[in-house]
Amino acid sequence: MAKGVTPKSVDYSKWYTDVIQRAELADYGPVKGTMVIRPYGYGIWENMKAAFDLRFKQTGHVNAYFPLFIPKSFLSREAQHVEGFAKECAVVTHSRLMASPDGRGVVVDPESKLEEEIIVRPTSETVIWAQYKKWIKSYRDLPLLINQWANVVRWEMRTRLFLRTSEFLWQEGHTAHATEAEAREEARRMLEVYREVAEDVLAIPVLTGSKSESERFAGAVDTLCIEAMMGDKKALQAGTSHYLGQNFARAFDVKFQNEKNEEELVYATSWGVSTRLVGAVIMTHGDDKGLRLPPRLAPIQVVILPIIRSDEDDAQVKAYLKTTLEKLESAGVRVHLDDRKKISAGFKFNEWEMKGVPLRMEVGPRDMANQKVFMARRDTGEKFALEIDSAAEKIVELLTEIQENLYRQARQFREANTFRAKDYGEFKELIESGGFIKCGWDGTPETEAAIKEETKATIRLIPFDSDPAGKVCIYSGRPAKYEVIFARAY
Amino acid sequence: MAKGVTPKSVDYSKWYTDVIQRAELADYGPVKGTMVIRPYGYGIWENMKAAFDLRFKQTGHVNAYFPLFIPKSFLSREAQHVEGFAKECAVVTHSRLMASPDGRGVVVDPESKLEEEIIVRPTSETVIWAQYKKWIKSYRDLPLLINQWANVVRWEMRTRLFLRTSEFLWQEGHTAHATEAEAREEARRMLEVYREVAEDVLAIPVLTGSKSESERFAGAVDTLCIEAMMGDKKALQAGTSHYLGQNFARAFDVKFQNEKNEEELVYATSWGVSTRLVGAVIMTHGDDKGLRLPPRLAPIQVVILPIIRSDEDDAQVKAYLKTTLEKLESAGVRVHLDDRKKISAGFKFNEWEMKGVPLRMEVGPRDMANQKVFMARRDTGEKFALEIDSAAEKIVELLTEIQENLYRQARQFREANTFRAKDYGEFKELIESGGFIKCGWDGTPETEAAIKEETKATIRLIPFDSDPAGKVCIYSGRPAKYEVIFARAY
Repeated sequence: MAKGVTPKSVDYSKWYTDVIQRAELADYGPVKGTMVIRPYGYGIWENMKAAFDLRFKQTGHVNAYFPLFIPKSFLSREAQHVEGFAKECAVVTHSRLMASPDGRGVVVDPESKLEEEIIVRPTSETVIWAQYKKWIKSYRDLPLLINQWANVVRWEMRTRLFLRTSEFLWQEGHTAHATEAEAREEARRMLEVYREVAEDVLAIPVLTGSKSESERFAGAVDTLCIEAMMGDKKALQAGTSHYLGQNFARAFDVKFQNEKNEEELVYATSWGVSTRLVGAVIMTHGDDKGLRLPPRLAPIQVVILPIIRSDEDDAQVKAYLKTTLEKLESAGVRVHLDDRKKISAGFKFNEWEMKGVPLRMEVGPRDMANQKVFMARRDTGEKFALEIDSAAEKIVELLTEIQENLYRQARQFREANTFRAKDYGEFKELIESGGFIKCGWDGTPETEAAIKEETKATIRLIPFDSDPAGKVCIYSGRPAKYEVIFARAY
Repeated sequence: MAKGVTPKSVDYSKWYTDVIQRAELADYGPVKGTMVIRPYGYGIWENMKAAFDLRFKQTGHVNAYFPLFIPKSFLSREAQHVEGFAKECAVVTHSRLMASPDGRGVVVDPESKLEEEIIVRPTSETVIWAQYKKWIKSYRDLPLLINQWANVVRWEMRTRLFLRTSEFLWQEGHTAHATEAEAREEARRMLEVYREVAEDVLAIPVLTGSKSESERFAGAVDTLCIEAMMGDKKALQAGTSHYLGQNFARAFDVKFQNEKNEEELVYATSWGVSTRLVGAVIMTHGDDKGLRLPPRLAPIQVVILPIIRSDEDDAQVKAYLKTTLEKLESAGVRVHLDDRKKISAGFKFNEWEMKGVPLRMEVGPRDMANQKVFMARRDTGEKFALEIDSAAEKIVELLTEIQENLYRQARQFREANTFRAKDYGEFKELIESGGFIKCGWDGTPETEAAIKEETKATIRLIPFDSDPAGKVCIYSGRPAKYEVIFARAY
């Protein structure tokens, strides 16, 4: 157990916050619900961003930027949409401050009251579809495949760093298509991009499927999602991709001339992932010593600690490592040499373990005498020596191995904690101890609501490979319409 | 002259807006003062960002993210700072909407009124220094070298796309240091980074120097800047780097223990460039046919237009270009093949000229028969054939040549429009016809204000190589304290 970190087994929620603070990932901002993403946490986000952005571009999307401010009236154009977001909106009402009449500080200038209040975007469908109306005239303008990296605001009173904050960073893709089939295909394609990054880069195994109606995005016809299991066996929605049908096109009157010269409403998708994924990484891989970062995501993949007693030793270590460092650099490995003086090796060990750096290398006089370097793996805790001559090549292999091992561990954990319940009594017992439960559902909102009320478990998703044939609903005993995953969730 | 674009000579301001719209760089947002950055404009911004971000990291900076929302009280902590920003603040006062009692749309829920109003950041010194107080204890925590890429809001009624919008995108560096000398050195270092990117990537020649007191950033001890001349001979402030002294450390009580174990206030800098630079690129290089983009900045460096009459021709052109395309790709050249059907070659020519793509390649049956490709340079308008076998190598050279030529043209234009006035009468005449005037200034705010009042010209900067020895003030006739650059500015 690391100093200052509550063990997971004692209090998972406290462990989570402790790790974030001690690994210097994030901090609370001064306005309630806001978060400061510190450089190390932001470095993780930058690597995630790059992995997603690359794939968005490879699948033909371009980035753009739409305004933070949305006229209040826009929000109410789509009935379900406004219902979904009205209760958590930051509202701008004035445009000026003035010196306080009592001479202390500043007050809002009442003269600057706006004619129409402005909403700070909780999501950008409305402001984007108002633009699409200007840009889309004909089938030749379609598909329109745009993504935006931005901050959004959804008022939150119960803050949880990375998972639930009033402001968060995300990307939101907004695409326009000539046909339903093409739009549905796009929503699936982007979910697959999410799955790929989650599994191959973040080493987080995810289930893919659709949301039930009650969990759908406000304004969507169909919400697809990737769903992950955290270290406390709760579920986390890691990304969503929505088929929006013609709802926003209708609300903003966006029509196009099809190839037959007829006017038709445009079909839409939107899809997003956010800084919440940083929280998912912490909770999927972290342990009582702190973070464990998958190499492909880690800002630092290998940290090198010279174990030295003098400046002379220092110079020797650097000379000794020169070739190895060059090889690592040309292999694209992100290396950090921690040569801080006056800080003990023990302190450094703990710090880099806390920060989840996949590999630690130590080099001292004895290692040099033996033509070795001493290594420690963060994922398994294994310690071993490597020959200096082949260290770089071996490290590249080890990074791949660690990436795969973290994924495998997380997947085994999820599989070991995914259950089938034979009846509702067992369902309730299982939910109490955590995990995913795969079972039949009769497809009614009433059943879903009753289970949620009684157990706090919700339908996380209807897996794409759902097979209800011959199954019955865990609650009503009626024939199952879907086979679904229930769990308590973040 | 391109269709739909007002010539520069007729109405420069209209020309600017026409180019932005026709090149699809940006559009107006629904809330007054806001801007939509369209994919092509955003692509230019992404390339700028990458050029700056690379250099920030090379000079030891890390990225982080601080909240959009600032408590109103924070703003008034630093007296000059609040004075500078109070009149242009978006103020959030409520956190919820509700169904309108009359059943039409939504209204602000009066019950959701906030205890303390929140300001949407106009800049982040206050929220960042409130955090630095938590993070800085000792000289070992310094220097702290953090940058943030973010959106900021400064209320604007007279919108001008990219140049003056209520919301804009920028980066803001905020650093903390143990000594004045180190902080001043940092401010200079980052100005040099700005100069380098402006000149080497954006091909915009800039002057470097300090601002006079009246043009300083609200809260700075010293504001350094890069200043450029636009195509209408007006000046544009292209980036600023501030030495903030101990002003924000004092306001937020940020002290550190120095090596002698004494408590001392921290020294600060901040520095920023914004999407306004996209406007600077348009106005520095654009002509009556539209944009002209420097190759290092251009999202597309070479556009290829197959001149074909059948699908068969199309396949032949692609086969013919295969090797050339591979070579260009491996040289890192950004190529776009425009094989849209049913759009005339003439239409495409105009479109890509409008979008400022540095090189256009045309390939038709006759070119193939002659083992050539046909090229057009956007910067000079020159047209010529290249041998297919050496086309890729030649294109790489041409891109460098175009980059340098655009810089040279802009520099010659600035030099041809930089004057020395022999007396105030001549000064007034020169200002009327536009350009930079280099002259002596007695250093008093009164003189500066009088000149501004009479001519609308302001001191753009006191160049670092200012040499006032033996010169007199253009206005007062008193001995010059500085040699400065006056101009009308954006």
